[in-house]
Amino acid sequence: MTTEPLRIGLAGLGTVGAAVVRLLDQKRALLTRQCGRPIEVVAATARDRTRDRGIDLSGVQWLDDPVAVAQADNVDVFVELIGGDGEPALSAVKAAFSAGKHVVTANKALIAAHGVELAAMAEEQGVLLNFEAAVAGGIPVIKTMREAMAGNTISRLYGILNGTCNYILTRMEDEEIGFEEVLAEAQSLGYAEADPTFDIEGNDTAHKLAIMTSIAFGTRIAADDIYLEGISNITLADIRAARDLGYRIKLLGVAQKTDRGIEQRVHPTMVPIESQIAQVDDVTNAVVLETDLLGALLMSGPGAGGEATASAVIGDVADIAKSRPGRQHGPALGTPAKELAPYEKARMRSHEGGYFIRFLVRDEVGVFAAIAQRMASAGISLQSIVQRDDPDSPDHASKAIILTTHATMETSIREAIAAIESDGHLRGAAQVIRMEPAG
Amino acid sequence: MTTEPLRIGLAGLGTVGAAVVRLLDQKRALLTRQCGRPIEVVAATARDRTRDRGIDLSGVQWLDDPVAVAQADNVDVFVELIGGDGEPALSAVKAAFSAGKHVVTANKALIAAHGVELAAMAEEQGVLLNFEAAVAGGIPVIKTMREAMAGNTISRLYGILNGTCNYILTRMEDEEIGFEEVLAEAQSLGYAEADPTFDIEGNDTAHKLAIMTSIAFGTRIAADDIYLEGISNITLADIRAARDLGYRIKLLGVAQKTDRGIEQRVHPTMVPIESQIAQVDDVTNAVVLETDLLGALLMSGPGAGGEATASAVIGDVADIAKSRPGRQHGPALGTPAKELAPYEKARMRSHEGGYFIRFLVRDEVGVFAAIAQRMASAGISLQSIVQRDDPDSPDHASKAIILTTHATMETSIREAIAAIESDGHLRGAAQVIRMEPAG
Repeated sequence: MTTEPLRIGLAGLGTVGAAVVRLLDQKRALLTRQCGRPIEVVAATARDRTRDRGIDLSGVQWLDDPVAVAQADNVDVFVELIGGDGEPALSAVKAAFSAGKHVVTANKALIAAHGVELAAMAEEQGVLLNFEAAVAGGIPVIKTMREAMAGNTISRLYGILNGTCNYILTRMEDEEIGFEEVLAEAQSLGYAEADPTFDIEGNDTAHKLAIMTSIAFGTRIAADDIYLEGISNITLADIRAARDLGYRIKLLGVAQKTDRGIEQRVHPTMVPIESQIAQVDDVTNAVVLETDLLGALLMSGPGAGGEATASAVIGDVADIAKSRPGRQHGPALGTPAKELAPYEKARMRSHEGGYFIRFLVRDEVGVFAAIAQRMASAGISLQSIVQRDDPDSPDHASKAIILTTHATMETSIREAIAAIESDGHLRGAAQVIRMEPAG
Repeated sequence: MTTEPLRIGLAGLGTVGAAVVRLLDQKRALLTRQCGRPIEVVAATARDRTRDRGIDLSGVQWLDDPVAVAQADNVDVFVELIGGDGEPALSAVKAAFSAGKHVVTANKALIAAHGVELAAMAEEQGVLLNFEAAVAGGIPVIKTMREAMAGNTISRLYGILNGTCNYILTRMEDEEIGFEEVLAEAQSLGYAEADPTFDIEGNDTAHKLAIMTSIAFGTRIAADDIYLEGISNITLADIRAARDLGYRIKLLGVAQKTDRGIEQRVHPTMVPIESQIAQVDDVTNAVVLETDLLGALLMSGPGAGGEATASAVIGDVADIAKSRPGRQHGPALGTPAKELAPYEKARMRSHEGGYFIRFLVRDEVGVFAAIAQRMASAGISLQSIVQRDDPDSPDHASKAIILTTHATMETSIREAIAAIESDGHLRGAAQVIRMEPAG
């Protein structure tokens, strides 16, 4: 066995980058035993050279720009931890491929935006593009889909892919506190950004979902063509009503093959309280993969955090350390980039599933019947109907009506609700939450 | 890219073997796209050549013995699906290695008994020994431990590794029927063998646990040195008491690093009802891996069944198809076989954890106090104490006393129970069930 080290050039020394450097040093003996050769960081770059990161960079060549690291003669693998879907990450990764280097990245934005192009470059050069850390942090979902599930045909996948949202929803349910208050708490704990929009409106989930969808269905990545609904309008009333019906509310990313194309959607979802995914709490992530051979495979674990993300990066690097230059590699997106099919979007209005609908109505005779009639006219089959006092209306001037439906077309739901709203009985807009897994 | 097919020689055409042959044919286009070359079964053998398995073997060379298949010149990978820890599987796998072939096997008994020796042979020859299907069926736990978790230090792992036991325990709880009745039902459904001993007494779980322990801790496989307790003495009364306390009973295999060595144990276990592992029902398997970098990673999915097991075999074969002869491989057991440390067993009496103890006692004054006194004398800190009517004693001549303890040494529990039994208040033996995860 060769004992030549695998030489890493690393760009980006934030939390994850610093953890990678520290762990490659701390775990050197273990990794050498596992990989048959040492892994060494030989070159690095970051925006700020002088910051104290608590890591020893004394043996590491400092270069001033990521492209220089990616192209350095003594680098075998370029590890991109800069982030962002544009420069300087994109040019640096391309430079690495042009120089015949393997690339490991944790950059979901980059893969979501440019994954097909980058996979094609890697395949042309016969090098690896590994990005386990880009999806669901420490959960090995890319490896599982790309390698372990060879030969499986995936029909649906869904997951809790954003720790911030899951933390907020968990706390709202456990502590009975409203969205805004929990968000502020999450921000003070560092679980949510100062501007949380990207997380709570589902964009982050969508990036990760788009990458998984491509691998699952052999289609080109379509991160900008995803139905998106965040959690900012989920109220305690929704969470309580869900619990009363035996459900929890989770922000899921769902990708599903239908005969109308592929559905990619991110939205708050009612999941049965006794399902495994309902037990995934706080910042933990989870992914469920449904295939013809395996039925359902669930994986849950840390979706973020410096060490968990660094672990995924190191796993990707270790796979390269165990391989030899010139070996044949599996394609980065499971399917060779040139053979990826176009993404055909299934329109959301033709989505079929169960729905939870909560109306606040004036407490007047005939309202309940009018709503029931509108649902019936739209051909919607109801699973349950509950009418109760509106806890936020102590004068009993309004009531809450909560419906759940059997599998129904989204377009029927939208029609029925538009009709009900035009009838003038509602106080405020109807709340609609999809239910999953349907059927 | 080479388009030469990867050529498979397959021994054993039971449910799994037939599924592998069928799926390699059905999924040929998909696998070729994923692996960059076709996978073809070129030689096969089984005890009975003539049986109708619903598969097409017309292009496959039939050989009369597994060694011949393993050594055949046109075979690149020997797939061993014979089963059993002895002959003919063992000699055939060794013959394959001697001939420089890769081996894929689903044979947990073989790996549990001879895994270290076989891993050493594979490493000497520079070929792969893949055995994903041997542990937890379709769940990619070996790949995750061997590859994705590179650099992680595992502290504990536990899992539901036997579908038969989990089916029985789930049905007992859901349907409130006793062990014997559910077992008979499981047998009629094909979920339990005619002689179910190997499953229900925990031996099957122990085999899988021993393999995972070796990979997790870099120690030699010690399948015969595992504390073993099956589920045959779990009663409905235990299950009901567990539920009342907020627990479910699962048969877990647990491996844990302690400062006294490694604990390997298989026993019925009380798990908190809101934990993810408590929601793993019926024949589904699950594994939890606790590491320094990832915290806890949970995977659940099908632990058995022809297609799920075949999927794991095909994943292993696909990994080989993507590689090239002569590449450097990661060691079969994660650590090079020659560097595996000896297994140092932590004695069960020094196990520390929570305990559930159920006594049936004569309904006499002072019994409760006597039991409490014995527990206190042994230094055991109680978490909860419940006394109730014994539902099986309608004359109220006996009561049930149910205790749960804080973390306690097993030796203290054994002492206390021996003392309580010698006091003569008990009707029947005490029931002791460990609680996990402790702390």
